[in-house]
Amino acid sequence: MKDELEKYFDRLWFLNRSLTGDGNRETLKILSELIDLQITEVPSGTECFDWTVPPEWNVKEAWIKDNRGSKIVDFSKNNLHLLGYSIPINKRMPLSELKEHIYTLPDQPDLIPYLTSYYKERWGFCMSQHQFSELQEQEYEVYINSSLDYKGSMTVGDVVLKGSSDREILFSTYICHPSMANNELSGILVSSFIYNELKKMTNRFYTYRFVFIPETIGSIYYLSMHGDHLKQKLDAGFVISCVGDSGNFTYKRSRRGNSLADRCAEIVLKHTEKQYIVEDFFPGGSDERQYCSPGFNLPVGSLMRTRYGKYIEYHTSGDNKDFISFEAMEKSILKYIEIINVLENNFYYLNTIPNCEPQLGKRGLYPTLGSQKGTTAFVDAMMWILNLADGTNDFISFSEKSKSSVQELIPVVNKLIENGLVIKNSVPFQM
Amino acid sequence: MKDELEKYFDRLWFLNRSLTGDGNRETLKILSELIDLQITEVPSGTECFDWTVPPEWNVKEAWIKDNRGSKIVDFSKNNLHLLGYSIPINKRMPLSELKEHIYTLPDQPDLIPYLTSYYKERWGFCMSQHQFSELQEQEYEVYINSSLDYKGSMTVGDVVLKGSSDREILFSTYICHPSMANNELSGILVSSFIYNELKKMTNRFYTYRFVFIPETIGSIYYLSMHGDHLKQKLDAGFVISCVGDSGNFTYKRSRRGNSLADRCAEIVLKHTEKQYIVEDFFPGGSDERQYCSPGFNLPVGSLMRTRYGKYIEYHTSGDNKDFISFEAMEKSILKYIEIINVLENNFYYLNTIPNCEPQLGKRGLYPTLGSQKGTTAFVDAMMWILNLADGTNDFISFSEKSKSSVQELIPVVNKLIENGLVIKNSVPFQM
Amino acid sequence: MKDELEKYFDRLWFLNRSLTGDGNRETLKILSELIDLQITEVPSGTECFDWTVPPEWNVKEAWIKDNRGSKIVDFSKNNLHLLGYSIPINKRMPLSELKEHIYTLPDQPDLIPYLTSYYKERWGFCMSQHQFSELQEQEYEVYINSSLDYKGSMTVGDVVLKGSSDREILFSTYICHPSMANNELSGILVSSFIYNELKKMTNRFYTYRFVFIPETIGSIYYLSMHGDHLKQKLDAGFVISCVGDSGNFTYKRSRRGNSLADRCAEIVLKHTEKQYIVEDFFPGGSDERQYCSPGFNLPVGSLMRTRYGKYIEYHTSGDNKDFISFEAMEKSILKYIEIINVLENNFYYLNTIPNCEPQLGKRGLYPTLGSQKGTTAFVDAMMWILNLADGTNDFISFSEKSKSSVQELIPVVNKLIENGLVIKNSVPFQM
Repeated sequence: MKDELEKYFDRLWFLNRSLTGDGNRETLKILSELIDLQITEVPSGTECFDWTVPPEWNVKEAWIKDNRGSKIVDFSKNNLHLLGYSIPINKRMPLSELKEHIYTLPDQPDLIPYLTSYYKERWGFCMSQHQFSELQEQEYEVYINSSLDYKGSMTVGDVVLKGSSDREILFSTYICHPSMANNELSGILVSSFIYNELKKMTNRFYTYRFVFIPETIGSIYYLSMHGDHLKQKLDAGFVISCVGDSGNFTYKRSRRGNSLADRCAEIVLKHTEKQYIVEDFFPGGSDERQYCSPGFNLPVGSLMRTRYGKYIEYHTSGDNKDFISFEAMEKSILKYIEIINVLENNFYYLNTIPNCEPQLGKRGLYPTLGSQKGTTAFVDAMMWILNLADGTNDFISFSEKSKSSVQELIPVVNKLIENGLVIKNSVPFQM
Repeated sequence: MKDELEKYFDRLWFLNRSLTGDGNRETLKILSELIDLQITEVPSGTECFDWTVPPEWNVKEAWIKDNRGSKIVDFSKNNLHLLGYSIPINKRMPLSELKEHIYTLPDQPDLIPYLTSYYKERWGFCMSQHQFSELQEQEYEVYINSSLDYKGSMTVGDVVLKGSSDREILFSTYICHPSMANNELSGILVSSFIYNELKKMTNRFYTYRFVFIPETIGSIYYLSMHGDHLKQKLDAGFVISCVGDSGNFTYKRSRRGNSLADRCAEIVLKHTEKQYIVEDFFPGGSDERQYCSPGFNLPVGSLMRTRYGKYIEYHTSGDNKDFISFEAMEKSILKYIEIINVLENNFYYLNTIPNCEPQLGKRGLYPTLGSQKGTTAFVDAMMWILNLADGTNDFISFSEKSKSSVQELIPVVNKLIENGLVIKNSVPFQM
Repeated sequence: MKDELEKYFDRLWFLNRSLTGDGNRETLKILSELIDLQITEVPSGTECFDWTVPPEWNVKEAWIKDNRGSKIVDFSKNNLHLLGYSIPINKRMPLSELKEHIYTLPDQPDLIPYLTSYYKERWGFCMSQHQFSELQEQEYEVYINSSLDYKGSMTVGDVVLKGSSDREILFSTYICHPSMANNELSGILVSSFIYNELKKMTNRFYTYRFVFIPETIGSIYYLSMHGDHLKQKLDAGFVISCVGDSGNFTYKRSRRGNSLADRCAEIVLKHTEKQYIVEDFFPGGSDERQYCSPGFNLPVGSLMRTRYGKYIEYHTSGDNKDFISFEAMEKSILKYIEIINVLENNFYYLNTIPNCEPQLGKRGLYPTLGSQKGTTAFVDAMMWILNLADGTNDFISFSEKSKSSVQELIPVVNKLIENGLVIKNSVPFQM
């Protein structure tokens, strides 16, 4: 899986993704090799809640030349050199004028910042502070061959993978950051590979929805179209972001704080990771801001590794291929698969012989040699499940209360089902 | 009390108790000197929920002789040598065949294990690993003169000690382990002596039910007969087990986790013991497994000293008279009496002068010299009770909130009752 | 403010305050310079709940002379020398007889105790243990020119400062301790100055009630007159006591434990003090005993500095001007003003664009340069408020959840109101 991840990473890295444009279109086209995306073109000017889809932005060329005609920065070398959504310009100017359009990171002098100006028309270039401080007093030639097309569109991809139930699980990732390895491309890749794994599963209970959108305006558009449906059907969702570095896992809770998404992610981390971080919801971050806005308040959290804002390479040219690890990325995929496994098994169970214990021995489920000093983990787990299966506890509760992992409990509950000792239901039993 | 405990211990120790049989009958007969037990013979084959009462097992003789005719193990020396519920046999066999029927504890080579085979017919002997490893290749004579009578019965004892209320408190102990001092006989003795003390109390509020049964099948039978009644009437119950060693007290909560049984036991331990353990319910253990099965979910916990499974002598010949202390056993009885004391005082109280404080001074309940720097514990306790007596707090809440022990509060509340300042009720006052 | 506090302190210190009498009358008259008190004379003998207003006590003169005619103690030097509510006497007696009427503090031999005998008729003097131990065998002349007037009255002051709402906030302080600087006079002064500050505030939402009463009998009388009204209208209240020393703040919770008073006081302390103490309600102390009696259970707590009973000078002549600090007293006033500020802003808010985030940028509320590494505290606070403003969270919840102080949040919420992005209400919005 690692090698394939790297292969796709390398093909996607240089595309100029933004809120709109051909880079996004090309990205979704490549991903369509992995995931059955349905592509939607949303016309610029489309109104969604308080927002309007911006004009489509494309860039053919962008550079600054010094007075000897050498390109001192060139968009074709690094997408980050160009301020996102820069308007076109073609002009000679002295250093003093140029400086007003150059952005750097004085505290991280080696790195190029990632900056945008989506909703105010301006132009600009980003460079390292080192390069900036060496600029000479001279005339520079500035050239940006970009277009802002008000008749263009924003490109969005999604796919719904049906299960036996119409209850839904959402995975949402964003496709608008150019050349950000952890804080963007890792999410795109992990989401696509999760889909790939899920598609192989037969007998899925849940219906899964994958969404690939530009951050903020994309999720706002998506909610304007599907928000009411999600309010009805969504049981859990995750914004997938920053899943490519080697740091410990971080889970950011949904606004509800104890939603199914939260309980699943936390029980998996508890039983599989030695060190991890759980954070309460806060209204900064990625598209969980929209999913968890008070009008929707959807059960959407985010399982990341090192969280945006918590590593110094965040939103700089330092968030590149060197910063991430394809091994870590693969583990992120597997962690999400474990969460899916919990979801797919999280039924309510009812003990069919609730008065006293059923006699397990006569069913071959209990040692015939009695009064032994210890019991096996399997017998212990049976006892827990039979005791807790009163129709009100879900499977995550079983794991929480018995302190056994969901993985350990799954074969046990299946054995009890086979023996007719418990039955299951997707919602609590009515007593 | 200690000496009498020891006297009964010595008379009961050598009886061969099991699920059924004359050893159990004889045990209950001796206990009838202490407790007014009603004996019930439950016919073998009786169905109760998912279980069937097993045939009655009795043993006349059981031994293994070597080729010189010496008995190398003899049931008459130690009940544990015989695997519980062994079927009869009378046969010579080589060591290789014998070995398949011998059980030892390789990790505790000096001790004989306690083992049974209630629901699968087999025969076997238990011995120390030391003895086992010295067995020579030769022919052995194996003799078990036991009987499994399908027309026999299981012997059960119980008694109901009426109080002024029909609300009930249950004490349940098991009578099926031969020669286990802490993990069986201590429970039998402590239960009987609690009864003895309770019988002396006049004006009991609660009705007390004592149950002496073989573990598991006994409580399942008992619940099949009295389960619906207990669901209606039981306010608290305790499985009495492992109360003879000198370890700290351990309280295992009922499945509900905050039942009256739990609150009583925990408030008593909190105010009287420096070190003790409280454990959440888990579905292993003794008859609380049946009382707390999901169909009953009764408020039954268990106050023990060192809990089964937590001491290495558990279910071995090491759980003998040396392991226990009659002083500790007496203290266990007194601890249960303290719990009963809390139960008997755990009413709801209503302040009859709820608006502002009543003037205690004019009733001689408050110092006439005012503005003194400190107040007495008695005055403090009056103030707490008057403040909390809003009809919704029970007496345990008074203790929890005032951080005074129930023992300290009892004379205070009685003084307030005498003065007409509070009235009491067995259930919350309707406001 | 400090100097004015000291000026009033000095004028009030020598007045002989008690449950009744001219000292109380004079005290309220002086305070009327600061606060628009309405004075009520409650006739002695008035019944209120379980209590009766005592006769009015006044003292003209009180001393003990030795056999050379020297006054060894003199009420005119220190009010504390006379046992409160001493009946008149004029008699010569030997030391042995005198000793039965003298009170000291053997453990604090330099200090004079503060003692009273309100409800039992007796006479007595208080002196230091040092002085007491030097008394010679001789005849003493004892003279107390006091009066207990059953046709007198108890003097009470209160004032209601109207706000736009009829929901009320209560401040209650006591006026019955003679010459106690921290444990009495500090409360009187702080209450008066809070009133002064409040009166300057325009657009008060809440109606504020200030009560100046003798402890216990005063609050009982007050509740007998206004208790039903307060049960209907009171949202929060505070007993102001022990607010003059330099110790850390102590907040004693109301009986409810999470009343609005408690939440306000605790959020202010959390965001403004490094070290402070929060205590659960207990039924000793000052007039919160009456306000929080079970029949009323009003939301009344008490913000103090070092709490009564927690400093050794408590109820002795050591609780004097040296013990307190007018700087600390001023800070106590400001701390209460902060609490009032929280109360006055503690509305419920509703986001008017609840589906996804409103576009702050087009309103000039968000930086136009996107994707910057950090956001400002102001933007963060806007995001928190917009996310939490679902109509069910009050402003204290905003502070609790966002971990920003109320002071920081107030300008932010006002900016959002200006922009029409949130609306407010004094009670939760009906959804």
